[in-house]
Amino acid sequence: MAGQLDGVKIAFLAADGVEQVEYVEPRQALEGEGATVHLLSLATDPIQAMNADVEPADTFTPDAAVGGAQVADYDALVLPGGTVNPDKLRLDADAVAFVRDFVTSGKPVGAICHGPWTLVEADVVRGRTITSWPSLATDIRNAGGTRVDEEVAVDGNLVTSRNPDDIPAFSAKLVEVFAGARQPA
Amino acid sequence: MAGQLDGVKIAFLAADGVEQVEYVEPRQALEGEGATVHLLSLATDPIQAMNADVEPADTFTPDAAVGGAQVADYDALVLPGGTVNPDKLRLDADAVAFVRDFVTSGKPVGAICHGPWTLVEADVVRGRTITSWPSLATDIRNAGGTRVDEEVAVDGNLVTSRNPDDIPAFSAKLVEVFAGARQPA
Repeated sequence: MAGQLDGVKIAFLAADGVEQVEYVEPRQALEGEGATVHLLSLATDPIQAMNADVEPADTFTPDAAVGGAQVADYDALVLPGGTVNPDKLRLDADAVAFVRDFVTSGKPVGAICHGPWTLVEADVVRGRTITSWPSLATDIRNAGGTRVDEEVAVDGNLVTSRNPDDIPAFSAKLVEVFAGARQPA
Repeated sequence: MAGQLDGVKIAFLAADGVEQVEYVEPRQALEGEGATVHLLSLATDPIQAMNADVEPADTFTPDAAVGGAQVADYDALVLPGGTVNPDKLRLDADAVAFVRDFVTSGKPVGAICHGPWTLVEADVVRGRTITSWPSLATDIRNAGGTRVDEEVAVDGNLVTSRNPDDIPAFSAKLVEVFAGARQPA
């Protein structure tokens, strides 16, 4: 049986401190529908994932550094959470430019938990309605966005969720939106 | 020899994820000048300190929960960094109110690294010039503050620094400012 995402290329962008379950589970859901997934990071050294932010979990080896990646190479982008992860991404000009270019390209972008901080840094939440981990509410509002408290928020090409409990709904919505945005063969 | 901070009571406010060196070293410097220091947190359970954000270090038992603390009980407040620590504090209404009340009381407040995020949450950086870990620059600017890249920034009762390398200068400035702000006996 053909997957809904056969032939779709998806980038996950993450750094040290990524919340493991927010990377692994959406990735599995997308790959389960046939997508090809690349992990991008600041460099190609293995990144340290965490459980609940403060307990080291597994390490993951990126496929490529975001500085060499092109928006044209991917059909969709996912930004997992973990508090430390976006805190590192937002300091990297290449990572922020990639996220900004992805959002402004109109291609779909998913972000969960603390992932939307990189959207704040890229100044792409202005006038948009998104959700996030609740600690980001003030930063999102101050960046001109509206934060709602919903399992999944969809505004144009932005798909956002709040926390690990939302992962099943987040992954299901990513499959639906990413399948709808695929290029005609 | 009398210390410069004999009789001065200082609160440190921190949660899980506090960067250990940013708590321990300024505390030692202040206690070395005779200050009495209390660790406040969200509750009185031990908090997990970290090294470089992702490596668990020691645990520390708070003296009291911030919900039961009064600004009147202390002469000064210090907010250490660590990425996860202020991310937890800013979700707690008691912690945010305590920080807001402390700053608006005019009593001196020190914050280092990611510590100023709680100042952003308390909406007390508007019109103020502070420094911080660089990832907070956008959030500080969006909250109406000016972020400078200096070892120690002093603006009124706010004393701020950027990172662990700044600790010696940060601690020295805290001693100076806190000594100047002490109540007449």
